[in-house]
Amino acid sequence: MVEIDMGIPLEKVNEFSLKELLGMAIKAEIGAREFYKSMASNVDIETLRNKLEFLAGEEEKHEEFLRNFYAQSFPGEEIVFPKEHVGPELKPVAEKIKNVQDILELVRWAMEAERIAKQFYSKLEEMTDDNAKKGLLRYLASMENTHYFILKTEYELLLDWEMYSQMMHVGP
Amino acid sequence: MVEIDMGIPLEKVNEFSLKELLGMAIKAEIGAREFYKSMASNVDIETLRNKLEFLAGEEEKHEEFLRNFYAQSFPGEEIVFPKEHVGPELKPVAEKIKNVQDILELVRWAMEAERIAKQFYSKLEEMTDDNAKKGLLRYLASMENTHYFILKTEYELLLDWEMYSQMMHVGP
Repeated sequence: MVEIDMGIPLEKVNEFSLKELLGMAIKAEIGAREFYKSMASNVDIETLRNKLEFLAGEEEKHEEFLRNFYAQSFPGEEIVFPKEHVGPELKPVAEKIKNVQDILELVRWAMEAERIAKQFYSKLEEMTDDNAKKGLLRYLASMENTHYFILKTEYELLLDWEMYSQMMHVGP
Repeated sequence: MVEIDMGIPLEKVNEFSLKELLGMAIKAEIGAREFYKSMASNVDIETLRNKLEFLAGEEEKHEEFLRNFYAQSFPGEEIVFPKEHVGPELKPVAEKIKNVQDILELVRWAMEAERIAKQFYSKLEEMTDDNAKKGLLRYLASMENTHYFILKTEYELLLDWEMYSQMMHVGP
């Protein structure tokens, strides 16, 4: 259903400056938010929609944290968004999702994006000396990890669609 | 700040029937929802409030799942709520939370409740033969585990209040 650009491998991160990496991170948070928001508005399962909306709200907060981080680190400088990115580039979902296979595929991509985002923030933490900034990056890594598990829990239940649809009172 | 009734130990669960245990579980979900909702309305930190509201919504869904489970297992029978419960009994937060120590204490209790809820659902799963019901209980256990990590992530950052308040743009 979807074609995904997998981005640069995590090992390449060392070839970029912190400034570029923060730009990538902000871009990724915006992308993730738009993905979750658009998926939420195109899915008919209330429990899943609630989770996606929650995740969208969280990524919006992350963007804000990272913009503050950037402003503190590079006062007065415009954010530069490199064309490169780390992990699968999530694209907004443009139409109603009609079957569970498509939901599963999208959730799998989101899980992969969260998994890599966690590693990316851990790597940024290593590259940072300031303790407050280290704390923020650790928090972001931990949040993305939580997102991964929220998605994984839903994914595992979705695999048994018969039970899921019965539980959630949704049609086939 | 709070006095907590710790409930019966998990090992005692075997002394109750599935019917009684489902009653306990439904009661616990209602309690957790009321706790999160009341805490959300008494806390001034937007990011934390969003998380608490999300958790309240999730527990409400769980209650619904468990009520369906009960209705299928014991058709036509009223739900019996035993006076016993498993894990810390979370009480609604009745007033504005004024300092971070109180937030930390409440989050700690919520973490403990989620940790035990996870174990409780795993135990109920062991006691259940039906595969669909086992699946539901596994899902609930996994969700409570996710809740634990959502709270833990926030808790760890809250421990460094200076950084947290700066990041979240909240006063001391």
